[in-house]
Amino acid sequence: MNKATLNVVMLIYPNMTQLDLTGPFEVFSSFKELQIHLVWKDMAPVRDVNGLAILPTVSMAQCPQADILFVPGGAGQLPLMEDEEVLTFLRGQAQTALYVTSVCTGSLILAAAGLLTGYRATCHWLSLNQLAFFNVEPVNQRVVIDGNRVTGAGVTSGIDFALSLMAEVFGTERAKLAQLRMEYDPAPPFIGGSPAKAEPELVAQVRELTCSFQQQREQIAKKVAAKLIQP
Amino acid sequence: MNKATLNVVMLIYPNMTQLDLTGPFEVFSSFKELQIHLVWKDMAPVRDVNGLAILPTVSMAQCPQADILFVPGGAGQLPLMEDEEVLTFLRGQAQTALYVTSVCTGSLILAAAGLLTGYRATCHWLSLNQLAFFNVEPVNQRVVIDGNRVTGAGVTSGIDFALSLMAEVFGTERAKLAQLRMEYDPAPPFIGGSPAKAEPELVAQVRELTCSFQQQREQIAKKVAAKLIQP
Repeated sequence: MNKATLNVVMLIYPNMTQLDLTGPFEVFSSFKELQIHLVWKDMAPVRDVNGLAILPTVSMAQCPQADILFVPGGAGQLPLMEDEEVLTFLRGQAQTALYVTSVCTGSLILAAAGLLTGYRATCHWLSLNQLAFFNVEPVNQRVVIDGNRVTGAGVTSGIDFALSLMAEVFGTERAKLAQLRMEYDPAPPFIGGSPAKAEPELVAQVRELTCSFQQQREQIAKKVAAKLIQP
Repeated sequence: MNKATLNVVMLIYPNMTQLDLTGPFEVFSSFKELQIHLVWKDMAPVRDVNGLAILPTVSMAQCPQADILFVPGGAGQLPLMEDEEVLTFLRGQAQTALYVTSVCTGSLILAAAGLLTGYRATCHWLSLNQLAFFNVEPVNQRVVIDGNRVTGAGVTSGIDFALSLMAEVFGTERAKLAQLRMEYDPAPPFIGGSPAKAEPELVAQVRELTCSFQQQREQIAKKVAAKLIQP
């Protein structure tokens, strides 16, 4: 990297899933070359879908141009796909960004902004298929790197995503150092954290529990994608 | 569980490591029987060691009694080990708690409050040995359950910790459901997230980078432990 400091612009928004953001934040924070900006429309606290309130560090109007642009996912992604102020902000930020990135359904926001068109990308497993509406190739993988588009799968994938991205930016040795400092040697108590490994009954149960919300998500995605592709 | 709602009291404090808290917060949030309280001395935003500002939901004075008491770790753990207001608060909370828990160096705060004396517990690998000063048996394990004391190792272990705890409280099936919804099927990009698996040079490098801070941590731990054991 030539620049002494790289600006990481991380979008935060109401009803996001906070771990989509806080996992990568923890990884990025190990790299002193990165200056992290948590950006929203204004400076009021942003509450995630479960009520965790985080303070933005900068408003959209004051935000510096990103070297790394990052978008988390979560329920609040639905209105954001139709929020022209946010989509315009993301397009403007992406112009200078060395990397355009997301975790979970954050990729659907990037897609709605037209920033993943023609790329391969991933998303939370429940919503992965929706990327195709936007002419994005869905890839069932924990982390997908396609050119300078780097996307992570659901929620907890943010740690894998961020370490992979840091390896791209700063090299493998630096990323391994961060991994060891965070003691990232995961030991999930159960097998079954992805639909490929979980018992089919459990997958069916999650699909049922999230069914009406996922239908709503799909409807909005289809509507936004139709406008994007044939404006 | 008999009660309709269980109070989860999660301590937040200046210069904590936010992922110690936000990983478990994400897991706990899946369980609608849990009411989560983020508690600090007052209601002002609490900045983690890397500048992430989180709002408390309640002050210590107003905090309900915990069913699950949780303490994260991080650099801010050092002054907390000598903070009588915090230690008194934790002792009072622990009296009603079904589970007394921590992630990372949060266990050193619990130990300083005398809440782990005689128990087996874990901690971030760099500080695990310091538990012994407090007559706590250090266990080199990702998650340690000893009676109603449940402790997690460094930073990222919080997700494994919280899923294990939820399995204790609500049973395996509920915990698996949460794991699948969070797509917790980790794929670390590198081997070496723990000192047992990392290259010795990398372990030495982390020890060197953190050496002076760890000496400071050890000095305070020894001082506090001496008072606790022979008051």
